[in-house]
Amino acid sequence: MQDRYNDIRALTLALAGPLSDADATVQSMDDASPAKWHLAHTSWFFETFILRDMVADYQAFDPAFHFLFNSYYEAEGPRHARPRRGMLTRPSLDTVRAYRAHVDAAMDAVFPALDTASRSLVELGLNHEQQHQELLLTDILHLLAQSPLHPALWPAEPQAIAEASPIDWIVGPVGQVEIGHAGAGFAFDCEGPRHAVLLTPYALASRSVTNAEWAAFIADGGYDEPRHWLADGWAWVQAEAIGAPLYWQEDADGSWQQFGLDGLRPLDPHAPVCHISFFEADAYASWAGARLPTEMEWEAIAAHFDADGGCQLDDAGPVRPRADAAGHLFGNVWQWTGSAYRPYPGFKPASGAVGEYNGKFMSGQFVLRGGSCATPRGSVRASYRNFFYPHQRWQFTGLRLAKDL
Amino acid sequence: MQDRYNDIRALTLALAGPLSDADATVQSMDDASPAKWHLAHTSWFFETFILRDMVADYQAFDPAFHFLFNSYYEAEGPRHARPRRGMLTRPSLDTVRAYRAHVDAAMDAVFPALDTASRSLVELGLNHEQQHQELLLTDILHLLAQSPLHPALWPAEPQAIAEASPIDWIVGPVGQVEIGHAGAGFAFDCEGPRHAVLLTPYALASRSVTNAEWAAFIADGGYDEPRHWLADGWAWVQAEAIGAPLYWQEDADGSWQQFGLDGLRPLDPHAPVCHISFFEADAYASWAGARLPTEMEWEAIAAHFDADGGCQLDDAGPVRPRADAAGHLFGNVWQWTGSAYRPYPGFKPASGAVGEYNGKFMSGQFVLRGGSCATPRGSVRASYRNFFYPHQRWQFTGLRLAKDL
Amino acid sequence: MQDRYNDIRALTLALAGPLSDADATVQSMDDASPAKWHLAHTSWFFETFILRDMVADYQAFDPAFHFLFNSYYEAEGPRHARPRRGMLTRPSLDTVRAYRAHVDAAMDAVFPALDTASRSLVELGLNHEQQHQELLLTDILHLLAQSPLHPALWPAEPQAIAEASPIDWIVGPVGQVEIGHAGAGFAFDCEGPRHAVLLTPYALASRSVTNAEWAAFIADGGYDEPRHWLADGWAWVQAEAIGAPLYWQEDADGSWQQFGLDGLRPLDPHAPVCHISFFEADAYASWAGARLPTEMEWEAIAAHFDADGGCQLDDAGPVRPRADAAGHLFGNVWQWTGSAYRPYPGFKPASGAVGEYNGKFMSGQFVLRGGSCATPRGSVRASYRNFFYPHQRWQFTGLRLAKDL
Amino acid sequence: MQDRYNDIRALTLALAGPLSDADATVQSMDDASPAKWHLAHTSWFFETFILRDMVADYQAFDPAFHFLFNSYYEAEGPRHARPRRGMLTRPSLDTVRAYRAHVDAAMDAVFPALDTASRSLVELGLNHEQQHQELLLTDILHLLAQSPLHPALWPAEPQAIAEASPIDWIVGPVGQVEIGHAGAGFAFDCEGPRHAVLLTPYALASRSVTNAEWAAFIADGGYDEPRHWLADGWAWVQAEAIGAPLYWQEDADGSWQQFGLDGLRPLDPHAPVCHISFFEADAYASWAGARLPTEMEWEAIAAHFDADGGCQLDDAGPVRPRADAAGHLFGNVWQWTGSAYRPYPGFKPASGAVGEYNGKFMSGQFVLRGGSCATPRGSVRASYRNFFYPHQRWQFTGLRLAKDL
Repeated sequence: MQDRYNDIRALTLALAGPLSDADATVQSMDDASPAKWHLAHTSWFFETFILRDMVADYQAFDPAFHFLFNSYYEAEGPRHARPRRGMLTRPSLDTVRAYRAHVDAAMDAVFPALDTASRSLVELGLNHEQQHQELLLTDILHLLAQSPLHPALWPAEPQAIAEASPIDWIVGPVGQVEIGHAGAGFAFDCEGPRHAVLLTPYALASRSVTNAEWAAFIADGGYDEPRHWLADGWAWVQAEAIGAPLYWQEDADGSWQQFGLDGLRPLDPHAPVCHISFFEADAYASWAGARLPTEMEWEAIAAHFDADGGCQLDDAGPVRPRADAAGHLFGNVWQWTGSAYRPYPGFKPASGAVGEYNGKFMSGQFVLRGGSCATPRGSVRASYRNFFYPHQRWQFTGLRLAKDL
Repeated sequence: MQDRYNDIRALTLALAGPLSDADATVQSMDDASPAKWHLAHTSWFFETFILRDMVADYQAFDPAFHFLFNSYYEAEGPRHARPRRGMLTRPSLDTVRAYRAHVDAAMDAVFPALDTASRSLVELGLNHEQQHQELLLTDILHLLAQSPLHPALWPAEPQAIAEASPIDWIVGPVGQVEIGHAGAGFAFDCEGPRHAVLLTPYALASRSVTNAEWAAFIADGGYDEPRHWLADGWAWVQAEAIGAPLYWQEDADGSWQQFGLDGLRPLDPHAPVCHISFFEADAYASWAGARLPTEMEWEAIAAHFDADGGCQLDDAGPVRPRADAAGHLFGNVWQWTGSAYRPYPGFKPASGAVGEYNGKFMSGQFVLRGGSCATPRGSVRASYRNFFYPHQRWQFTGLRLAKDL
Repeated sequence: MQDRYNDIRALTLALAGPLSDADATVQSMDDASPAKWHLAHTSWFFETFILRDMVADYQAFDPAFHFLFNSYYEAEGPRHARPRRGMLTRPSLDTVRAYRAHVDAAMDAVFPALDTASRSLVELGLNHEQQHQELLLTDILHLLAQSPLHPALWPAEPQAIAEASPIDWIVGPVGQVEIGHAGAGFAFDCEGPRHAVLLTPYALASRSVTNAEWAAFIADGGYDEPRHWLADGWAWVQAEAIGAPLYWQEDADGSWQQFGLDGLRPLDPHAPVCHISFFEADAYASWAGARLPTEMEWEAIAAHFDADGGCQLDDAGPVRPRADAAGHLFGNVWQWTGSAYRPYPGFKPASGAVGEYNGKFMSGQFVLRGGSCATPRGSVRASYRNFFYPHQRWQFTGLRLAKDL
Repeated sequence: MQDRYNDIRALTLALAGPLSDADATVQSMDDASPAKWHLAHTSWFFETFILRDMVADYQAFDPAFHFLFNSYYEAEGPRHARPRRGMLTRPSLDTVRAYRAHVDAAMDAVFPALDTASRSLVELGLNHEQQHQELLLTDILHLLAQSPLHPALWPAEPQAIAEASPIDWIVGPVGQVEIGHAGAGFAFDCEGPRHAVLLTPYALASRSVTNAEWAAFIADGGYDEPRHWLADGWAWVQAEAIGAPLYWQEDADGSWQQFGLDGLRPLDPHAPVCHISFFEADAYASWAGARLPTEMEWEAIAAHFDADGGCQLDDAGPVRPRADAAGHLFGNVWQWTGSAYRPYPGFKPASGAVGEYNGKFMSGQFVLRGGSCATPRGSVRASYRNFFYPHQRWQFTGLRLAKDL
């Protein structure tokens, strides 16, 4: 576990490598956090839930950081207001790196002495940090997208364009099917308890919807026709003047470009569509005469596939959904499901502050499954439940169609 | 059916009986509609979906009303903006009554000639009107509550106070259970298709939570302690400075009064708590060591009870949840469930404009079950799914606890 | 004075004559008040500042009205929030009329006994009521304009169209000139003290800018060209998507109609432009190579003209600015000046609650002069200072150009 | 002039010396700009108005900067939206410094060849840059004040506390008095034309209001009593929960601290009160039984004093209003006047883009006079008119009382 700790902590730093102090400080919207904040908060997690309790004479790097870098743990007391995270020009990025080193050194010393409960909290902290690795990437992408200069974080050659395969339909298991996490490996509390659900005949598309397919939806007036949309979705489209996925830009000649961590590029027609909201995913499915899968259907199928395959995050560098990885059920883009994020039967949050990790967010959000090109490889599972509000789309989010049989 | 048409239409008018032209015109918030608008829109429904198509030379009462009184049917074209309904001082309440008479006369003439499809639309229109009867009452209550004068719409003697019974636990059926509407009677499209669900052992409280129990929650700091609350709920409590159910007023001596259609009254400790949001219901259940039932659990039990019993709306006059009717599963207060309002497996909306009735609202809302003291008797069923956003509480909404066994 | 009291009180009632209870109740925006509120507040003024103190055993019509119908007098205690005036469906219009009758009867009885100070407060109350007569008309016009039905309050034949005269320039007095109220007649406190100002050579246009001239400004791109506009004005034009005076509607063929108390009418090209903001007036003057007069320049000239001439309010009925009255310096449309509303040298507000009448509004507003077609004849003077915020335009506001010589 | 150019440009850089890339990038509110933006925009001014036109083959440092760093010159085309200036993490602070060097080198080369018109634009650019030096300080102070860590930009020893002198009254000249700029030196266009005004007997306090005096206003309930306040001011106090000057913090024991560029310090009772709005200044004057001076009164007196005296900005380092400099009419804190910022008689803005410098801001703002401790010495004059909205208070703003004689 100590090696894994070191690897994961190192990857976080590497992801922030090309960032300037300013890049790492600015908050581009209330939903996003500064990169510096991600770097600090993930360290705060180990400091607060391991070092503070396990190391007798642990000296906090800076006592003010307990207030500054608490995210949302009410049980840990008041905290710096979320929408004001971008006001913290100090501590600097270098100081935050020093904070990480301080925590890592203390963790290094304490590792041999950790009891089972603590090791379980470290495991939670590592999975937590992997979640923040993806958030760091999505938040920095959102920030860079605010600049009219279209700066590339990792300039890169365009990928060779692969053809998208035609859609096949994967037929899922029916009747009483067990879903939810079971077994020895790590899972978040909201992935259980494992329980049986009843499934009726259905199939899941063999790949995600592509950019070219989405462009056809646009060309067919998909964003102008209320009958495809949920009422809240239609109100959102009207209020925000939405007409394309986030980060798409239309040129004067009607062709599309897409902004990413490697800058502005011509849209790859065969790559999975990305940065769409639940509302858009649902409207597309309606337009296409299909529907979104439920999270139970998705998991019932996914349990039979390799979660480590496909396009996922391995090391620092540009990430983009790739057409040539579209055949995998995992990776590339998170897949919106039609399931509201609610507790499984018998769900009980953990006691203490870490009980606030998942349970208190179970209203108003929808479940996404499968991970994305920005999800650290090894951190996603068939039972993994990601969740966002139906209008949010700055994550690497796409969709895969489903249908009744 | 024609008698039922006449009875229902007459009740709507009777409910609006004590309203002045001004009472019937003002819109007290975006979520509410003026009483005059309810009176007109329910007539618009019959005019648009029956008379326009079934009566060869039907003369609209006023062609402008098609625009003014469309609620949200995109397929019926543009409409007067919802938050501006209160700007329509004209037509007057008397003119709207004349509009109703015009539509009723035309309906009276066409009834014998209606084919099955049309009769089915009339049935939908009647159930629609019954929904608006309840909305008319909740909206006028909200309006009157804005006045510092606390006007009583129907002054009335206080009810004799009945003792609340102790809570028993109703054990529900488990395993594969069928829910959803089936059979000959009317139901809204979202109540089907009937399908099997898997239920694990659970029980439902024999009565709703009372005002006295809620006052204990307040006295115990229920509104001040984030750990009881969903994160969105806690943000709502903070932003809106919520500290009690809607329409509760605290006197200088710490006692509570409650505003209702019969004016301001001392709080009845034994009556069901009413006018609470989903967020409040969920927090209370968490504080009480219980949980909300799922809508499937609720229905599996309710299918065995008489839906016409309890305190429901029979005629014009003051409505209040009553302690002496608390033993019924139906009526008194709508019961928040823990289920997000989403389609049942295989759900397809009806084609045409009426297909917009339910399906497009299936995001962000939670299901309520059972009807209230303001629900017209005969219009609620075990399979009936009401739905509101988790912060809304101007309906007659309460809760009934559930627990795992 | 008693006759004048009766006449003015009667005119207020007559102006509200065609209003339904609903018309008189709804508040169409925060800046406007319901007609019922105007009727009640003007009575509140006499009740509070005369009857309460002068009549030993005066019985208030309803003690709650002291709270409900206080406008902004902090010294009179808390009051119903201004933006919630439209929530008061009760008291009804009839009850408010009874309130007026109650106050009038008490005033009738007390008139002979009034001392000088009280008669001076009555005089203030009458001028106050005349101000509210104009506000009642502008507020009801704003309300009716919200309806897609374009209801006419006073249906009327179109006026014969008179030609607008060419603009002459009235040369004003220069050097040390006295302005501000002096002498025996009534004036508001802000009209004094009379004092000398220094004026350099200037001239004032002999008539207001016409609708035809304004249409030329629009056709020349006046609303699209930032260089004509003050920065705050340009921001307002952009944020509110302003492209024409309030109540102008463009037909499909590009012709203009104008909504008024007599309904929707083709725009009269020769009538004074009306319902423009200070920002628009200033931009027009800039486009026209002229400027707005200062309030001192305007008054220095106006002191030589008859304040009772021109188109002003005489009795209940439709009011519109008229081309045939454009030769008068008073009436038709209020004229925006370039002067911020600030105190004259030596200004001291009156003591007590009525000291809040004018002085506390002396920031952020601009002075208008001359009265309008909705100003009761006899209530305007050369020294009269009206004031509104630079973006407001629901009053009968226009402009008259000035230039340096 | 070339030396002065070099000195002023060097001071700007020096002021930004202690800033990190992050400090220089974040925008703490819409009214403020990032330090980096000030550094770039002042260079943009010379590039746009001198180099682009005067240097035949001038190569812009980066063509994108013309869009990025235009402030509000509509005639120079579209620009990056003001509230989004803080999104520009790139270019970095170092790149902006290189931009400055590029412009300075080009200016150095072109200086000998400048004609009179260009030299006049350079003079404007230098005064413009001096204004931005003060803004840079006030904006960075506002940013640092957002941090719960209270970082000091220039840690410094507290000043020795000097006693405030008692107030004397300076009697001003009366009758026809000339104000406005005249003569050879530089002035902004809004400072002229010079013209005569009429003044009646008045006096101006010999020093500004002190912190101790302001604390007495607070202790006397100054912020709780509406009768001291303009109506807009009272609304602002209520809406924003204002109870003390900006940057004052009350300790648990009731003592005050004040945040400044040298960090958090106990309030100096004898120093001038600073960071107050016009609304606060006006309310204080009302409470004190005095009034604010008009800008004409202030200038008529100030013309007889040395504008270079007092506490003003000489070099990079902490700035605070100082008790020992309170005897000077200039420096320490800007003094709110009671005059709305409007054009002088005969004012015409310059033609071209620089005509947008002052004239278009002449609505809604109030004039301040005299400069502050953050105003570069040598850049303020008796005729200098600064202007801000009445609620703004992040500048070094205070007040000096006046009274009628």
